[in-house]
Amino acid sequence: MPQAVAGPEIERLIQLLGRMPGLGPRSARRAALQLIKKRDTLLAPLAEAMRVASERIVVCSTCGNVDTCEPCTVCRDPGRDPTTLVVVEDVSDLWALERSGAVRARYHVLGGALSALDGVRPEHLNIARLVERAADPAVTEVILALNATVDGQTTAHYITEAIRHLDRKVTRLAHGVPVGGELDYLDEGTLSAAIRSRTAF
Amino acid sequence: MPQAVAGPEIERLIQLLGRMPGLGPRSARRAALQLIKKRDTLLAPLAEAMRVASERIVVCSTCGNVDTCEPCTVCRDPGRDPTTLVVVEDVSDLWALERSGAVRARYHVLGGALSALDGVRPEHLNIARLVERAADPAVTEVILALNATVDGQTTAHYITEAIRHLDRKVTRLAHGVPVGGELDYLDEGTLSAAIRSRTAF
Repeated sequence: MPQAVAGPEIERLIQLLGRMPGLGPRSARRAALQLIKKRDTLLAPLAEAMRVASERIVVCSTCGNVDTCEPCTVCRDPGRDPTTLVVVEDVSDLWALERSGAVRARYHVLGGALSALDGVRPEHLNIARLVERAADPAVTEVILALNATVDGQTTAHYITEAIRHLDRKVTRLAHGVPVGGELDYLDEGTLSAAIRSRTAF
Repeated sequence: MPQAVAGPEIERLIQLLGRMPGLGPRSARRAALQLIKKRDTLLAPLAEAMRVASERIVVCSTCGNVDTCEPCTVCRDPGRDPTTLVVVEDVSDLWALERSGAVRARYHVLGGALSALDGVRPEHLNIARLVERAADPAVTEVILALNATVDGQTTAHYITEAIRHLDRKVTRLAHGVPVGGELDYLDEGTLSAAIRSRTAF
């Protein structure tokens, strides 16, 4: 255990920074020093932004998004297509789709994917509420925007079965070559899918 | 410009997190989500630790260390060898030396190194105060613990000249093979220095 270099306040700041994703003990020290050097322009505003966030953020009881209002900005947006529900694993996926601007619908955040390995079972996910929402007569299509992983696809199959009785159109994201991607670096599964789903030029 | 996904409070948190060293816009979003998920165990305590740090941290007027007391913990420690001054470029170097436990002396933080390219001149660094401190009759040795870079070594030469009239012993860190280092990966300069300064086995 190295001796404490600075006061307990700085040590505590370093220790907490080290628990942030992407920062280890060494980069936490570097980050702490940078924050201290930019006290007025970064450290103080960031402290305030974190305090406000920690006090005001709520999980949307409708879709599972995080926001500072309930229902969330997306759920209360009247410009969204009410016929389509986009199912995602995590809030970060919702944000990614919103950044793409590809769809102006409502979302449903599952909070993860089924995983036998990690012991994630259907009752651990926000699936019951999804079935309720999909039962709304206004909904005609459910887009399963889940990760193209084993767990994601297992979850997609489970949800398809869970809402089969509602007789909704259930779709999933296309597989293919990422925009800007080089064929040489892609796996065989992606290339096969891209060939199978080829489109007219 | 993608549409705002969440409320302005979350957008502001992401924007400020993205200005932290080591976090870009994408990792800032991921970090924000992780912080929100661990609101009570991480986000709120970190906000508080940052607030406390931003309010209490001072730069030590003696040595240039950052701490929450003035003079700093190191300067007020009576167990430090008063005959030796360790000169470092940055507070992070001071912390690194303290972690190593290699020396129990007082420090002097220059706040950078001379650099013709970046326009850093002697008056931009904390050198005048160093000359004052080195003039204290109790001081017999000045250890120049500066980076082994062109700028660091230029600074070392400048300081050596600036305190020559005081007739103190001026030393610098040894060059050699890092502990755990493999010769194959070291540059020629380091290997030459390690051979030149070889010690009896």
